Amino acid sequence: MAKVIEFKTLKKDFNFFIEELTFLFKDDLYAINSVILNKLDSKISLIHEIASHLILSGGKRLRPLLTCCSFQMNKDKLNNTKQYIGLAAAVEFIHAATLLHDDVIDESKKRRGLLTANEVWGNKTSVLVGDFLFSRAFQLMSKEGSSKILKLLSDTSVIISEGEVLELSNDKDLTINEDIYLEVIHGKTASLFSAACQVGGICANVNDEKIEALKSFGINFGMAYQLIDDAIDYSSTTNQLGKNIGDDFKEGKITLPVILAYLRSNPKEKEFWNKTIQDLHQDKNDFEQAIKIINKYNCIKDTIERATHFGNIAKDSLGIFQDSKYKNVLINLINSSISRIQ
Amino acid sequence: MAKVIEFKTLKKDFNFFIEELTFLFKDDLYAINSVILNKLDSKISLIHEIASHLILSGGKRLRPLLTCCSFQMNKDKLNNTKQYIGLAAAVEFIHAATLLHDDVIDESKKRRGLLTANEVWGNKTSVLVGDFLFSRAFQLMSKEGSSKILKLLSDTSVIISEGEVLELSNDKDLTINEDIYLEVIHGKTASLFSAACQVGGICANVNDEKIEALKSFGINFGMAYQLIDDAIDYSSTTNQLGKNIGDDFKEGKITLPVILAYLRSNPKEKEFWNKTIQDLHQDKNDFEQAIKIINKYNCIKDTIERATHFGNIAKDSLGIFQDSKYKNVLINLINSSISRIQ
Repeated sequence: MAKVIEFKTLKKDFNFFIEELTFLFKDDLYAINSVILNKLDSKISLIHEIASHLILSGGKRLRPLLTCCSFQMNKDKLNNTKQYIGLAAAVEFIHAATLLHDDVIDESKKRRGLLTANEVWGNKTSVLVGDFLFSRAFQLMSKEGSSKILKLLSDTSVIISEGEVLELSNDKDLTINEDIYLEVIHGKTASLFSAACQVGGICANVNDEKIEALKSFGINFGMAYQLIDDAIDYSSTTNQLGKNIGDDFKEGKITLPVILAYLRSNPKEKEFWNKTIQDLHQDKNDFEQAIKIINKYNCIKDTIERATHFGNIAKDSLGIFQDSKYKNVLINLINSSISRIQ
Repeated sequence: MAKVIEFKTLKKDFNFFIEELTFLFKDDLYAINSVILNKLDSKISLIHEIASHLILSGGKRLRPLLTCCSFQMNKDKLNNTKQYIGLAAAVEFIHAATLLHDDVIDESKKRRGLLTANEVWGNKTSVLVGDFLFSRAFQLMSKEGSSKILKLLSDTSVIISEGEVLELSNDKDLTINEDIYLEVIHGKTASLFSAACQVGGICANVNDEKIEALKSFGINFGMAYQLIDDAIDYSSTTNQLGKNIGDDFKEGKITLPVILAYLRSNPKEKEFWNKTIQDLHQDKNDFEQAIKIINKYNCIKDTIERATHFGNIAKDSLGIFQDSKYKNVLINLINSSISRIQ
């Protein structure tokens, strides 16, 4: 047993720091999970079943953890508010609602090692239960949030849906440029990371400068996190929990490794991308061939470089906060998030 | 020309009283439409296009009109708030979001005489633009609403989605009983009618007793309205604007006329319903045959009777309000809403 603990302590990877965050905020997480459980309840048993399937299936609760950490890093001793608990749960509900709708849009079959809700219960039910979770999020916000927080989270929901529509309207378009792609993940992923951090700061009554810092931290961490996620999908060496390597390729999803590879490909290689991604005609060895072209043009390396760029901005944005174990774990989270693939 | 006006004035049907409401609140409607236009804007042009297609395609704005009427019926002279304008727009956005998702769920091809958004742009885009409209609604609520209104409208969104899931989980189930069906339309339709009325009352600072009255008025008017809508779908004599007779039957939708008919049918007729609704195997003359069975068992007459029951409760709930042109038009609206089919 001692060996296992030692091994876990030595391997300071992303999961290690998620565990550290989980440990640091175990009481908060317990309270957040209680709110989630309570709000998953519905007189319609099907809703309870589907929502639980997704939201209790072992997600990391990364966004609520960011809210807790941003709060604790900034609160003064006299601030005993528990407002951020319900709001962290609201953020997780918004996240879960978008996952349900995403899986319908992407026709995904698996998430976190389980069949997706749309696979088990069908697209229609997933759309409606997504709406339910979204409504629950607004119920929680309305109960707990100040007008500033309500504005932040409702603005964020608009930005998320704009990002999703932007992505869908460029579906299978290999000529999408890097800037449009960055706008997509800014909306889809980074905006909610950022809102989660800002909510914690607002509950801790920090000044506008610090809110701006938390906003920047969240956005840039989110960008880095999503870019590495995209890179992992074309990595043959990494085996991250919950990630199914090759899913993006199978779905013909356009992510940065493919955008860069397509821009750098010769005409014959461009034909390969057109066939496999645009027309979604994929043969047995096509994924291997995709990785080959992607590596030939250093597209994973360059995606990691882009992620590192955003990660560095995120780390620097924490400069105005006093040193603390909370700040440390955020920095470690960024570093280890990027080295998920190295 | 004079004749046309005279004719319009004489035919005091539902459309006449909608026109009267529209005229009474023309300035408010202008302001509400400005908010709607402004909030339809998005940097993603596809969102603007789809949302406009639905929301500017000539809906009656019945729910916002209920908000305006409930406000004006109750406000005192010194109350100059314009808060209800943005909130009425929020109610219309929630309504529009549910229409987009509904049309995906029901696989509907036409709405208000136009192709549905899902027919033109596909299901995926409709789901995401629905999310956008829903988020816009919460943005408006967060900006304009008191905590009481935020609670009301977010609770209502939860109830709407529960109603939708309840309906879907009983899809094509001919053995659904009347009570479950009433619960479905309570969630799907009546709850937002009720919220629209309550919002107007809250903005006018009425007491709790009057809020309860507006709540009851909205719920019962909504129930009556939906039941008549369901009856119209099996009516061969009515030609209501925007309603395509026979759509519910074609989609195999279970509504009260069918529920009553199935309960009263003999074994051979039950077989007919199983084939046409449950299995959705429909031949050329099946709709005619459906109407025949429905009329044989007085199911339209009885659906109208149920609607009249709810309409009467709605009218009585207005008893505590002083007589006014606003109260009058609401009573006329209920009466004419029910006689849409008689």
